[in-house]
Amino acid sequence: MTDRVNMTHGGGGRAMADLIRDVFQKHLANPILDRGDDAGLFAVQNGRMVMSTDGHVIAPLFFPGGDIGALSVHGTVNDLAMMGARPLYLTAGFILEEGFPRADLDRIVQSMAQAANAAGVQVISGDTKVVERGKGDGVFITTTGIGVVPESLDLSVVNVAAGQSVLVSGTMGDHGVAVLSKRENLEFETAICSDSAALHGLVADMVAAVPDIAMLRDPTRGGLSATLNEIVTAAGVGITLDEAQIPVSPDVAAACELLGLDPLNTANEGKLIAICPSAKADALLAIMRAHPLGQNAAIIGKVTDDPSHLVQMKTAFGGTRIVDWLAGEQLPRIC
Amino acid sequence: MTDRVNMTHGGGGRAMADLIRDVFQKHLANPILDRGDDAGLFAVQNGRMVMSTDGHVIAPLFFPGGDIGALSVHGTVNDLAMMGARPLYLTAGFILEEGFPRADLDRIVQSMAQAANAAGVQVISGDTKVVERGKGDGVFITTTGIGVVPESLDLSVVNVAAGQSVLVSGTMGDHGVAVLSKRENLEFETAICSDSAALHGLVADMVAAVPDIAMLRDPTRGGLSATLNEIVTAAGVGITLDEAQIPVSPDVAAACELLGLDPLNTANEGKLIAICPSAKADALLAIMRAHPLGQNAAIIGKVTDDPSHLVQMKTAFGGTRIVDWLAGEQLPRIC
Repeated sequence: MTDRVNMTHGGGGRAMADLIRDVFQKHLANPILDRGDDAGLFAVQNGRMVMSTDGHVIAPLFFPGGDIGALSVHGTVNDLAMMGARPLYLTAGFILEEGFPRADLDRIVQSMAQAANAAGVQVISGDTKVVERGKGDGVFITTTGIGVVPESLDLSVVNVAAGQSVLVSGTMGDHGVAVLSKRENLEFETAICSDSAALHGLVADMVAAVPDIAMLRDPTRGGLSATLNEIVTAAGVGITLDEAQIPVSPDVAAACELLGLDPLNTANEGKLIAICPSAKADALLAIMRAHPLGQNAAIIGKVTDDPSHLVQMKTAFGGTRIVDWLAGEQLPRIC
Repeated sequence: MTDRVNMTHGGGGRAMADLIRDVFQKHLANPILDRGDDAGLFAVQNGRMVMSTDGHVIAPLFFPGGDIGALSVHGTVNDLAMMGARPLYLTAGFILEEGFPRADLDRIVQSMAQAANAAGVQVISGDTKVVERGKGDGVFITTTGIGVVPESLDLSVVNVAAGQSVLVSGTMGDHGVAVLSKRENLEFETAICSDSAALHGLVADMVAAVPDIAMLRDPTRGGLSATLNEIVTAAGVGITLDEAQIPVSPDVAAACELLGLDPLNTANEGKLIAICPSAKADALLAIMRAHPLGQNAAIIGKVTDDPSHLVQMKTAFGGTRIVDWLAGEQLPRIC
């Protein structure tokens, strides 16, 4: 049964060494990983670095526009990018379920390698564990990344203040709807693809043009609503949105209508929120729209000094509603 | 049901924010984590760093001498230490199963915090995912660490050469037997505790006294046999062991006899293998024995130029046997 993962593949013996060589080293080869040490060794310069980790438990593993392998690269690269960092290195920890098809693992690691190449990062160390059938769910991947933050750049929620503008880099909810369309018991036909993508290139253009951006954050689990509510709570401000300005693709809007979902609560994996001085908002918008991953960018609202720390939205009908965050995700395991 | 983890705790909304605040930030608080950004930001100096990741899926979660929380710190700190590094920062990714008791999670994160404090490292970023009941097993923890390698130090399997001596820092097999003693359907009475410990302090003493150590490695999954077989394969050498010199505690020897296990295939979580020039072996041994985690250190064998790349052992009865590595672990999920 060498076409499926079995418990010996996690045992630290000959079978694990074979799996590492035949799957991980094959696809992810680079001089640091190839040394075969228990840790990846690299040189650093004086400066500031960021480090971030993200577990990926998405179901299903393959979805329109991506898979858990590419997603596990994009998710962590984007956490680094939101700090303004140039991503350098990743590590990857795999937790495999006994019986998982080797062909699927190979496809996932290959996709990871392509995403890492495209993002200019190397996977320099890894780990593989195997759990018994029924104690996991195919594959979980935890990636950790480090990156270098340019001198003088300071992106943080502590910089957010009333009067600043709120921008998004594109349409909301594509990833969540694309994944849901492939869920068992829920499958529906749609052309919607996940937006899963590495955003550090877009961010590099943005911070080069507008170095006084206050903060960036990617609206993943919980969507735009959860992320903006996190921000108003942490910064002690309010935010007013203009519904008419928030980009949502017609297909996503229709699918959300059908499923009873709100696109603002729906996950994204290749979009960012930027908050910047209002005087710079138009310049920043132009830079974002000039990048392939920011073509549908928009200025969607303003930071206010609301003492109740609410996210409010002027609706398309002229009213105002509070954009609350949910206790959880509308549907679980979206990333 | 706030005394158990539920799916909302992984959804990116209010419930997850509460869990992070009440469990992770409470126990792991430090200035970098407390900023609440998606990544931990820190300053670095010119030099060389190492980065390593380790998934922890041990069953049971609590065992004599430790738990998954402390183990997840020790496992990754030790991977850094084997490169001679001073560990700096960790990240932690948690994959929780729906229904997992909050009290157990709290106890695990508290244990993690104590282990991190004791090892002088900070957990600077983290991530939490929740999977449905039956799709995980309580809690899996993937930790990633970075550390700084002193100038000029070069520990690697490529330095291993015939004539060098092989040392271990203490008794073999304690962790594996301690964990097995608590396995369902296998429980037996024993005073054996896991050796789970952070080894970077011992390593610092060793490299200060004998800077030309060829390599270090910790014999975890697969035990001494698997690790030595990895080394002979990678370095293209042989190793000859002297069974009488390999430290095994009487309790572990008795338990292994009873269970039909070989202590040399049994996992350790607070021991290391060192390979060094033979002229320095006695000096290194003295340094190791002077450290609390190396009291039972021993010189156990020699590197040879065996073209078959075998690990062989002079047995207590005067014969010689090949110390092979197993395909997998004797029993799974030992770390």
